[in-house]
This record gives sequence, structure tokens and C-alpha cells, in this order.
Amino acid sequence: MTDTSVDTLKNAATQLRIDSVRSTSEAGSGHPTTCLSAADIVATLFFGEMRYDPKDPQNPENDRFVLSKGHAAPILYAAWAEAGLFPREELLKLRRIDTDLEGHPTPRLSFVDVATGSLGQGICAAIGTALNARRIKSPYRTYVLLGDGEMAEGSVWEAANMALHYDLDNLCAVIDVNGLGQSQATQFGHDMDALARRWDSFGWHTLVVDGHDIPALQGAFASARTTSGKPTMVLARTLKGKGLAAIEGKDGWHGKALKKGKETDDAIAELEKQFVTGAPKPVIQKPAASSRPADKVDYSKLPPPNYKLGDLVATREAWGVALAAVGGVDERIVALDADVKNSTFSDKFEKAHPDRFFEGFIAEQVMVGAAMGFAARGAVAFPSTFACFLTRAADFIRMSGISFVNVKLAGSHAGISIGEDGPSQMALEDLSMMRAVPDCAVLYPCEAVSTERLVAEMAQHKGLAYMRTSRPKTPVTYGPDETFPIGGSKVLRQSGDDVATVVGVGVTVFEALKAYDELFAQGIHIRVIDAYSLQPIDAATLIAAGRATGGRIVTVEDHYPSGGLGDAVSEAVSSAGFSVRRLAVREIPRSGQPDELLERYGISAKHVVEAVKALL
Amino acid sequence: MTDTSVDTLKNAATQLRIDSVRSTSEAGSGHPTTCLSAADIVATLFFGEMRYDPKDPQNPENDRFVLSKGHAAPILYAAWAEAGLFPREELLKLRRIDTDLEGHPTPRLSFVDVATGSLGQGICAAIGTALNARRIKSPYRTYVLLGDGEMAEGSVWEAANMALHYDLDNLCAVIDVNGLGQSQATQFGHDMDALARRWDSFGWHTLVVDGHDIPALQGAFASARTTSGKPTMVLARTLKGKGLAAIEGKDGWHGKALKKGKETDDAIAELEKQFVTGAPKPVIQKPAASSRPADKVDYSKLPPPNYKLGDLVATREAWGVALAAVGGVDERIVALDADVKNSTFSDKFEKAHPDRFFEGFIAEQVMVGAAMGFAARGAVAFPSTFACFLTRAADFIRMSGISFVNVKLAGSHAGISIGEDGPSQMALEDLSMMRAVPDCAVLYPCEAVSTERLVAEMAQHKGLAYMRTSRPKTPVTYGPDETFPIGGSKVLRQSGDDVATVVGVGVTVFEALKAYDELFAQGIHIRVIDAYSLQPIDAATLIAAGRATGGRIVTVEDHYPSGGLGDAVSEAVSSAGFSVRRLAVREIPRSGQPDELLERYGISAKHVVEAVKALL
Repeated sequence: MTDTSVDTLKNAATQLRIDSVRSTSEAGSGHPTTCLSAADIVATLFFGEMRYDPKDPQNPENDRFVLSKGHAAPILYAAWAEAGLFPREELLKLRRIDTDLEGHPTPRLSFVDVATGSLGQGICAAIGTALNARRIKSPYRTYVLLGDGEMAEGSVWEAANMALHYDLDNLCAVIDVNGLGQSQATQFGHDMDALARRWDSFGWHTLVVDGHDIPALQGAFASARTTSGKPTMVLARTLKGKGLAAIEGKDGWHGKALKKGKETDDAIAELEKQFVTGAPKPVIQKPAASSRPADKVDYSKLPPPNYKLGDLVATREAWGVALAAVGGVDERIVALDADVKNSTFSDKFEKAHPDRFFEGFIAEQVMVGAAMGFAARGAVAFPSTFACFLTRAADFIRMSGISFVNVKLAGSHAGISIGEDGPSQMALEDLSMMRAVPDCAVLYPCEAVSTERLVAEMAQHKGLAYMRTSRPKTPVTYGPDETFPIGGSKVLRQSGDDVATVVGVGVTVFEALKAYDELFAQGIHIRVIDAYSLQPIDAATLIAAGRATGGRIVTVEDHYPSGGLGDAVSEAVSSAGFSVRRLAVREIPRSGQPDELLERYGISAKHVVEAVKALL
Repeated sequence: MTDTSVDTLKNAATQLRIDSVRSTSEAGSGHPTTCLSAADIVATLFFGEMRYDPKDPQNPENDRFVLSKGHAAPILYAAWAEAGLFPREELLKLRRIDTDLEGHPTPRLSFVDVATGSLGQGICAAIGTALNARRIKSPYRTYVLLGDGEMAEGSVWEAANMALHYDLDNLCAVIDVNGLGQSQATQFGHDMDALARRWDSFGWHTLVVDGHDIPALQGAFASARTTSGKPTMVLARTLKGKGLAAIEGKDGWHGKALKKGKETDDAIAELEKQFVTGAPKPVIQKPAASSRPADKVDYSKLPPPNYKLGDLVATREAWGVALAAVGGVDERIVALDADVKNSTFSDKFEKAHPDRFFEGFIAEQVMVGAAMGFAARGAVAFPSTFACFLTRAADFIRMSGISFVNVKLAGSHAGISIGEDGPSQMALEDLSMMRAVPDCAVLYPCEAVSTERLVAEMAQHKGLAYMRTSRPKTPVTYGPDETFPIGGSKVLRQSGDDVATVVGVGVTVFEALKAYDELFAQGIHIRVIDAYSLQPIDAATLIAAGRATGGRIVTVEDHYPSGGLGDAVSEAVSSAGFSVRRLAVREIPRSGQPDELLERYGISAKHVVEAVKALL
């Protein structure tokens, strides 16, 4: 903490208010009143509490600030302008297509770790940045600012538990309790006791302050800094629109810019009167320089896969083996799970690298959110759970995409091939969910060797990646020296007489191979492709196969038809004018044995044979 | 409550234990130990507390029981067998393809309201069934049984807030605190104080009991029944595997069936010794018969849309107007929102039907979960929020599909056409998410009249439905007498000279129409289709259009390519051998003005013109 005077901080807050009003008025949209309530908090943090290099927002020793209430973006931008990162005039470009000062913060800006604007996510990401400080042994602290409306999001309570579990005393959250949501008062309004009881009961060091009282805020942050063994929650009572008498604490002003001209000019004049004369400009304290070595990363030391052709190994288990192995050659890797590590096999990583494994219990949102925060600070984060339960974190995955982070998701137990547990446990939309993230690598290997190779590929891939793994054991099909680049595929059967192409992925590769044998016995030759990389997909190989087989293409997948393999192949070959016959699961399935289910829901070898014959 | 003796309940619990062990052993999989911990709770509820007709599980006056810890399905099935709904021998078919006694409960069974098995959802659905009791003015009570691991799910705390907000004293939750998760001890183990503090702080009437002490359980349920103004939480301390000495309280037994033969036989023998001799069989108390009239539903009284051609109206506003109108002719309809009712325009419904509007604050999971519970009890539930934030409830939407319920979702502010708020607020994967639910009607009207007609269609449609609405105002395009069946489309431009078909939806219909004008001026005629129903999609019209236009088909959508319009059209026309050129948003977008963004991301009229010309 610096010894910044209260008047200096008051003036900084006033400046942030002015800039928030001016920039939103210029943009003609945005959330000025939500900035005004937070101004004293933000000023105290940025100019009185946090240690960071204002010219180098990515300095690994900087304290982190996450704006969980992302709609207050204008005040975040104003704070960095005030800190000197860029000229204040830039703020007037807010929300324009020619600036990175977007409506809500994204990491296109150097000072933003993760995109926010979907409420209840920033605090989850902050768990990850706080845990990362431990990983890299840095004293940096993480601050996260929430709105009170956000407390309704369940993810906030997932974060509360996880921060407690990991004794995150380097984490300080602040809630800007202005009492007003978008459409009406929040559930608890200004009932600070009701809010404090909740955070107390979740084990946090909880403080209630007047969020416009700068010395009180300073005291709270000092208390947080000196509290050990638990995270701190500062509940700051504020007024939405604070500083503008006509608006302060009034409902109906959410997300409304003031009108340019008189309304804005009057507001600025009212705010300018609040400057205290004679206070010095703030001095920001920089963190100490670090001298620690960079994370060790050396994939040349990764041993090759150690499987024998024909051995039966579930890809989920191969994933766990591979993750432990890449963890051994890449110190950036951390793994997180949601109480299913003995099913996903992330427990193999935990055993090999216990310091880099994080149990998130049954809380998929904070698991992915923490992974985002980790990844934003240099880790390569592998969260895993059953593929179907990744849908619980769909909005976090969406925001991971917008955050361009190195998060590598794994979803096990995909599809109807899990069998008896029934539809609630069968992911049949995960490929679609992940393909809907632009540039996310979507991988679905069918056996152990390709799984192991692809885990190493995804670890080194820049950006989001997803691997879908299966519950049943499948035969090792590839030799230890085969390579599996992201964007590739494997042609498993081909001849000059092929009359159709069958594209399988995961468990259905083996249905395609069985269909090949049946058709071969009848004198019909087909090409069989393992499309292990669904995104990017190997369009060149697929088009070539289509050309060689009369444009007859059949896809077969353990997934619903929407957004899965069939759609991916269809778009890939559309430029060649080919259409695709899609075999997929087309109704809500039920419990049963895996083979029975493949048969019943139309994705067994028998259905592949029929589909091929129907095209001839 | 009945006057069932403690010994009678003990015996019922023992019988449930025996049946749970026997059925999972026969199946060779399942979760016997999680049934054993819950047996005394379930026995006390089913045979000592709840009022229901065991021969008529759907009786509207029955108390409801939701098994939030869905993996304890075998004991739920055992309870209904014990109650006399079906023969006990049926239990031995557990998890087989030829029975509805699936691995986790689904509403294929008459006594299951909503599918469970994704943890933290049942308690959200229970909010809906409890609120429904008020809607139909029934004294029925709702009981919901959770596992302690579930408390990690944020959705549980969303439910905690909502139940408090609506003073749900007809709701009693029980947590089976066996202290063990799947892969290790839960975060709080048997620290009952830590758990009780949380529920206390969230305002629930909280009781801690020994979950194997039947009189204590009876007392807790009696206390719940006589508590007014708040929901009750019974925290029941239990042992996983209770009743089998070798397994009781031991880690490593989650989700493992006992081996058939000696291991199972010994366990059954050990349990059978726990029967108390001489206790009478339980007598289940039935609810009083009801005499209330059925919900009034008369769509013949629905006034026609009242818009003038060319008027500018946002479809989100037309949705709000329409919802208020259908609410006037269909008493089953309830609406829920997540603090954006003044943006989605569900506030129009609230104004017209305040008793049937439920504010869920910023908590999308419980909003959709409560809608599931409502719909399971005869309501037609319309939850709404920004389309992008429906991804927050993706797992609930998935389970809604498995529950076959009348939930009608609306997502507003879809796509890049929202403009300046930026990517965090732009739904670009919602169509994909909803199309991945089999049989979900997915609707995306482009203007007000079709919106209004389709709201009435979706309200009357049996099962899940989704409507995507837009932020910008668009011109009224259809007359008040036009009809819009689900599964239909509208051909907006056609001639005998058409050389290509352009399929738009929502805001891009108008880009397609602009492209038509530009091409027409150049002497090029195209067919333009408004594919307002993406699922089911109007394959016949699309194929006919493809045939009439040389197989040249262009789709244009304000959505990512995966799982949206292009994929839907592509599959619909694949049987005719047509491929599709897809215009869609192909990267993470940014803030800007709507028109700038349509241009930048390749879905404006200009791009349609280019795509058509490229195909010629």
C-alpha cells in the first residue's frame, strides 16, 4: 500500500466518475451509474492499495484486478488512463469498432485477464489468478470487484467455497452494494447484515463498510492484507449514481447513458465541483522485480506412448496417463476436477503432480472459471469432468473463448456408449457446444495412442481446446510412432475400388471398421476415416475421399446430429458440392447396455452398412 | 402425517436397503451405498410423512418428492414398489433397456416429475413444484432429497435464495450428509455446524438431525410442516453404506454394486437381521380429493396481432406483448425472468398477470429449474433472459429435454446485431444449444407478426420450445392473418427465373431482402426464404427451392456456423444431394454499431450478393 492521501484518492474517484460519464455519453450507451457507485472503491484500489506497474499491465508480479461486474467497464478504462497507460482522450472512443475499449472488458486489452460481462464469472477467474500466485511463488494479490446483483449467481458461491478450501488469503473481493439491479431492487437491497451473514457463514473474513468512505475502504483493504488463512470479502454499501444528486440511489437508471449536451455537461460540472484542491497526484507503488526462472517446458523429453496394438484401453484412462506425462515435461500445466477424478482419471495427474492438482468438488462453473484465471496468468489449465456436466459451465466456456485463454477441457463418459447410467450422464451435445467456440480445437480420439499424442498437442496448442473421451475400452489401433496433428485425420481403410466414404470418430470408428468388414465380405469396398480432429477438420482429406468415392459420404457419431461430426464434415465438403448422410442419435436415449444402445439409436455397424447401401 | 410406528418405518427402511442392494447387484452397476445412507430418510418420508395416492402418482394433490441426488434412483424405485405401485420383482430389471427403471430417474416413470442425475438441479425444480402448489391453490407439499456433495453446486444456492424470496414454507429439503463424495470426502465432511451455518444464513428454517434416527426425522418433518414463511432444510447426518458393517462410512464404495453371489447374499442376510418383528405394514395417507376447476385455456379468444406493415418493432418487444396476450387466454402460463424483464419485455406479462410472474434475479439456473418444476405440474413455463445467458442454464436445458416438460424459453438480444455491448452479451451459439435438444421447437422470427403468432404456437406446442428474439427494431413484414405453423417457413421472393435460394432467419432476412433488390437491379433473380422455424425445419420447401434454383443454396445467420441455420438447412436438403454455402459469424466479434458488425463479420447484404454470384 502507498501512503496516498485521502484527498488524492477522492480526486481520483471524481476523475473516474467524470471519465465514466463522459465516455458513455459520447458512446451514447453504457452503464455510467454502475461506475459512479464503484468509483471510490476503484480509486482506493488502483491508487492507494494495489502494487502494479502502470506501464506494464502484464508484469507477472503485478497485483491483479478483475472486474467481475463487467458492465462497469468505463471506470476500469478510466482507471488505467488515470494510471497513465494510455491518453485519457482514448476513453472517448468507448464502444467504437476502431478501439479495444469495448462495451465489456476483453483481453484484447493488455490490462484485462479474462473477459467479463457475464455476471458471477470474474470471481471464479480470480480464484485462478490467486492460486496461480502460489504456483509461481509470487506475492501478488488478487482483487475482484462484484456487483451485489451478482450474488444471485450460484457460481459466486462455488467460488466462495473454493476460495475457502484453498485458504486464499491473497484474494480480496469487494461487492459494490448499490442495492439496485437492472430491472428493480436486488433481493437484499441495502440489508448489509443479510449479505454479511452469508459470507461469514461461508468462512470468509467479512467486512462491511461505507463504499464512499475512503479511509474505511483503506482500512478494509489493510485488514484483508494482514488476514491469513482465509479470503476477505469487503461489502461496500454504495449508492448507484453516486455524485450526481438527481440520480443517486434512483431506480430506472441502469444501463442508460446521459444525453450528450446539457444533461452531460451539467453532470460533469456537478462532479468537477467535487475536486478537492491542493491534493497531490497519486503515486502508484510498483511491485518488486522478480528473478524466478521461467516455467520449464521441454516436450522433447516426453516419452512415446507405451501401448501394444490391440490392447483394450479406455481413452479416458489414456487421457489421464497422458496428462500426468505432459505434466512432467511442462511445468505450466495444472489440472482441476469436479469430484470425478477417479472416473476421468485426472487422479493420475494428482498422484504425479499433487501441487498442481486442484479439486473443485461438484462445482463445474468455478472449475472452468478458475482454469480461465490460471490460464490468463501463464498456466496451461486442464479442467475435467464428465462431458455432460461441462454443459454446467457452458457460459464459462463461451467466455473462455472470448478470453482467448489456454484452457484445455476434457469431457469423459461421452455419448450413449456409457450404457446403463442413462441419458442424464450421456453427453450428446458437447461437440456442438465446443465447436461453437471459434478457434477451439475439438478432439475426439478413438483409442489410446492417438489420445496420448493429442493431449501433448492440445497442451502446446495456443488457445482453447477440448478433448472428448469415452467410457468403454477400445483396442489400441495406432503404432507408437504415428503422429496426430490438430486438424488432421487418419484414413484407416482405402482402396481404388471404394464406393463410399464412412467417417467415424471416437467409438464409432470401430462401428465403421466393422461395417467395412461386413461390406468387404459382400464385395463392397468403402473408405474409412477417423476424424479425430473435429475442429479444425481435415477438409482436404475429406474432399479427396469424397471425390474418390463418387461423392458418397456417411458420417456416424455418438452425439446428436446438431453441431457434431456430420455438420462439421458437411461444411468441410460443401465447397466440393458434396452432401452428407448423417448417422447420429436422434432422440432422448435411455439406459441399456452400450451395444444395445448403439443398435437402438442407429449408430451401429449395421446402420452404417445400410446407409452405405442406400447411397449406392 | 400418518401415525406410523417407528418400528414400521425401520422395517420399511430395511426393505428399501435390501431392494437397493439386490437391484444394483442384479444390474451389476449403480450406487447402493448412497441408497443405504438415505434409507431412513426415504422411509420416513414415504411411509410416515408424505400424503399421496400410491396408485396414482400424478394426482395433483399428492405431496411431491424430488430425488435431487438422482444416483440414488434404486431406493426411489424401491419406495414406490413398497408403496404398492408395481411389483417388487420389477426392481430386478433396474438399468435394463426393457424397463423404465433407468440408471437415474426420468419422467418416463409416472412418479418422477423431472429427470435428475445432474446434481443441484432437483432442488431448483422443487422450487417450481412448490410455487405451483400456490398457483393451483393446493395444500400439497414438496420434499426434495439432496446429497451433501451437491451443496458445492452453485445452483443449490440460487435455489436457496429463490425459496426464501417466495417464502416457500411448503418446501422441505433434506440433505443426506454422508460426508463422502465420489472421489473423496466432501469439502465439509460431517461438519454439521458448517453446513447449518450456511443454510441459516440463507434464511432457511434449518434443523440438524441424525439421519438414521427415525423419531428425530419425524420430528424434523413435523417442524417443517408447522413452520410458516420460510422453507425448511433438514441436515441429516448419515453414513454411506449404512446397514452393512464392512462398508459403513468407508471411502471407495461410491457407484459400486456388490458382486452377485456371496457378497450380495451376505449383505442381504445382514440387512434382513435388522427387521423388527411384529411391526405392522405402513399405511399411506392419501390427500383429500380436489374439486377445483381445470385451468382455463381458450386460444379462440386470442386477439390477432395488431401491427401495421412497415412499422418498426423489435421482436423482443413483440414477444412481450404476445406473452401477455397468451397469458390472458391460457391460465397455465407462468413467466420467469432473471433481472432483465425490462429488456426481454417479460415485464409486459408481469404487468398483466402479476400473480403468475416470478422474478428470479440474476440466477438463470434456478430460473430454468423452477420452470421445469412448474411445467412438470401442469403449468406452461416461459423463462426469459438474454439469449447468451441461457448458456448459464445449458445443463438445465439439457435435463429439461430429458424431462419432456412444457418449458418455453426465450432468449433476447441475440447475435452481433446487438452492437456496442460487445461479445459477452452476444448469443452466437444459442440456436446450436437448443437444436441439440431432440424435439425442441427452435423458432427465430424476423418481425412482430410472426413473433406474436409463434408465441401462441409455442405455448400450445407439447414439449420444449425456444424463441430467439432480437434487439434492433425490424419492419413488420407480414399481415395480421398470416399463419406461422411450427415447422413452416415463408417464401418472401420467388419467380420462375430464380438462380439461387437465399435462406435467412431473424435479422438476416432483411439482409437477404436487400441482396434480392441489389441482384434484381443487376438482372439476377433469387428466391428468399424466411426459415423462422429452425427445428423442425421446412425441408420440403427448402428442397423444392433448391430444385427450382439449380441446387444453389446460401444461408445467412447472425450466429456461429456450428449447429445453426446453415447446418439445419444443410441436413434438410442433404437427401436431395444439395450442399449449402453458409454465411455466419466465424470469429469472436467485438463492440461496434450493428450495421458495421454485420458488414465486418460477413453476414450483410453485400456478402449475400457475393455468395450468390460466386455460385453462378
